Amino acid sequence: MRVFTGIQPSGDLHLGNYFGSIKQMVDAQEQNETFAFIANYHAMTSLSDGERLRELTMQAATDFLALGIDPNVSTFWVQSDVKEVLELYWALSSFTPMGLLERAHSYKDKTAKGIAANHSLFSYPVLMAADILLFSPDVIPVGKDQIQHVEIARDIAIKFNNEYGEIFKLPEYQVAENVATVPGIDGQKMSKSYGNTVNIFGEEKKQLKTIKKIVTENVPLEAPKEYEECNVYNMAKLFLNEQECVALQERYTQGGEGHGHFKLYLHDVIWEYFRPYRERRAYFEKNQDEVRDILNSGAAKARVVASELIEKVRSVTGIKY
Amino acid sequence: MRVFTGIQPSGDLHLGNYFGSIKQMVDAQEQNETFAFIANYHAMTSLSDGERLRELTMQAATDFLALGIDPNVSTFWVQSDVKEVLELYWALSSFTPMGLLERAHSYKDKTAKGIAANHSLFSYPVLMAADILLFSPDVIPVGKDQIQHVEIARDIAIKFNNEYGEIFKLPEYQVAENVATVPGIDGQKMSKSYGNTVNIFGEEKKQLKTIKKIVTENVPLEAPKEYEECNVYNMAKLFLNEQECVALQERYTQGGEGHGHFKLYLHDVIWEYFRPYRERRAYFEKNQDEVRDILNSGAAKARVVASELIEKVRSVTGIKY
Repeated sequence: MRVFTGIQPSGDLHLGNYFGSIKQMVDAQEQNETFAFIANYHAMTSLSDGERLRELTMQAATDFLALGIDPNVSTFWVQSDVKEVLELYWALSSFTPMGLLERAHSYKDKTAKGIAANHSLFSYPVLMAADILLFSPDVIPVGKDQIQHVEIARDIAIKFNNEYGEIFKLPEYQVAENVATVPGIDGQKMSKSYGNTVNIFGEEKKQLKTIKKIVTENVPLEAPKEYEECNVYNMAKLFLNEQECVALQERYTQGGEGHGHFKLYLHDVIWEYFRPYRERRAYFEKNQDEVRDILNSGAAKARVVASELIEKVRSVTGIKY
Repeated sequence: MRVFTGIQPSGDLHLGNYFGSIKQMVDAQEQNETFAFIANYHAMTSLSDGERLRELTMQAATDFLALGIDPNVSTFWVQSDVKEVLELYWALSSFTPMGLLERAHSYKDKTAKGIAANHSLFSYPVLMAADILLFSPDVIPVGKDQIQHVEIARDIAIKFNNEYGEIFKLPEYQVAENVATVPGIDGQKMSKSYGNTVNIFGEEKKQLKTIKKIVTENVPLEAPKEYEECNVYNMAKLFLNEQECVALQERYTQGGEGHGHFKLYLHDVIWEYFRPYRERRAYFEKNQDEVRDILNSGAAKARVVASELIEKVRSVTGIKY
């Protein structure tokens, strides 16, 4: 199956990103044909600082390579390196009723939050439709907030196919099930917008400091402790096998240790888990030219698929004269 | 001065097109650096028939070459052959407030006429802004209905420049003065939408038939005739020098000839005027590969200018990572 994922170049990755989507993407590579791109055109809808976008793009590439995107099995590229997407975006625009965009949640939500109502923000579901349709994926893993975008892409594809025949494979989304909810340090769902994240990459001291801030119940050191609702336990169990979980549960129920001890343990567990990824990241960080080479090769692979589709589109629409 | 013109591939050209804009464009080539492109992306906003768009694109190229666009002095290309325009279109979209597009007359007019309110129709002033700004023209000759589009391009350019420095030359429009109003065969302004056109290229019999339909006053053969308000005279004078005009006026005032005679004369005048153009058109019609070569060379010339500008845009926006 061809699995398709867009990556927002949004800065430091956290445990919520990792267990919510990145791990699945990396694991899925073995069994599937993975297409993953860094959505730098999309990032422009809300970021005008060019230097920052450059950093974020390279950071996303470095992070995802470190975390296990394997360019030998997956197709991994930066959106703006496959410019065919923009021509498809324009071709789809004539098959995109304004009402479809006016009903898009993301536009309404963002402008309601005070983000300037610019054309790029309004039209980016069309660009996203082009992203998807250009690569004829079998499935697009999404969070619930992204379902509507796939539906819009599907609606546009149907209208286009009605006019020109079966050019596009109709996209299907898949909302991941059995995805662990990752608690933030305040117990809410971990999210950058809540400021409650534990980052994947960063200094050890900083991580420890963050983990020490995890909200826990106030119980005397000697007393037995509740683990099921404990944010420290719930974060730790994401990394532990069953045996290790049971061992930690026993430390909670026995008493004699405080949450401070569990936090130190959690810190060690996280730190060790990401050690190989951190080492790989350090390597790519030092070898940014190699990262660029990987992205260039990825774009070349993506263009093989994209150009076959865009040629069909150019032919049926008459762009090719 | 760099003069910039977009050509709608809209089918058979008529005298209104010729005296309203084409003649000025051709004459201006000697003194100016002319950039002229066939707007096939724009045509997609209201035309989905790919075969028809292909025909219209080649027809526009053939017609304009026949009428005097000189590819040795001008840069003449098809819009979709310089794909940089689409990347600029996307980059400008984040600097295009929705209100600017919502206030665009062309969108309101077209949807009021029942044309489907699609995203491409809504957003095409942004693509037009990209068309213009990509080539840093000094002046854009426009009809009055196109003034707003240049103003929109200017507004977007100002916002972009405010963020990134002087990337874009602010475009200036020029409404041609002393442009003769070309009467249609019914006396209204000649326009395809009124169905009152006399085409430039076509069969002689057909042209004569059209000219015989020109509305004139009903006066006996022997009587003197009014010429100032006569559609036949007003069409003829576009082609005549002063001496010839006076001679025709005398034939009107003397009496003894009917409008039928003047129509035959008008037909001859038009037919002779366009004879060399018609011959050149026949040549290009037979040598469509040469037309394609000319368009390819034109696109290559245009891309030299376009790529210099798009590189700046990629750099400041961070598309180039």
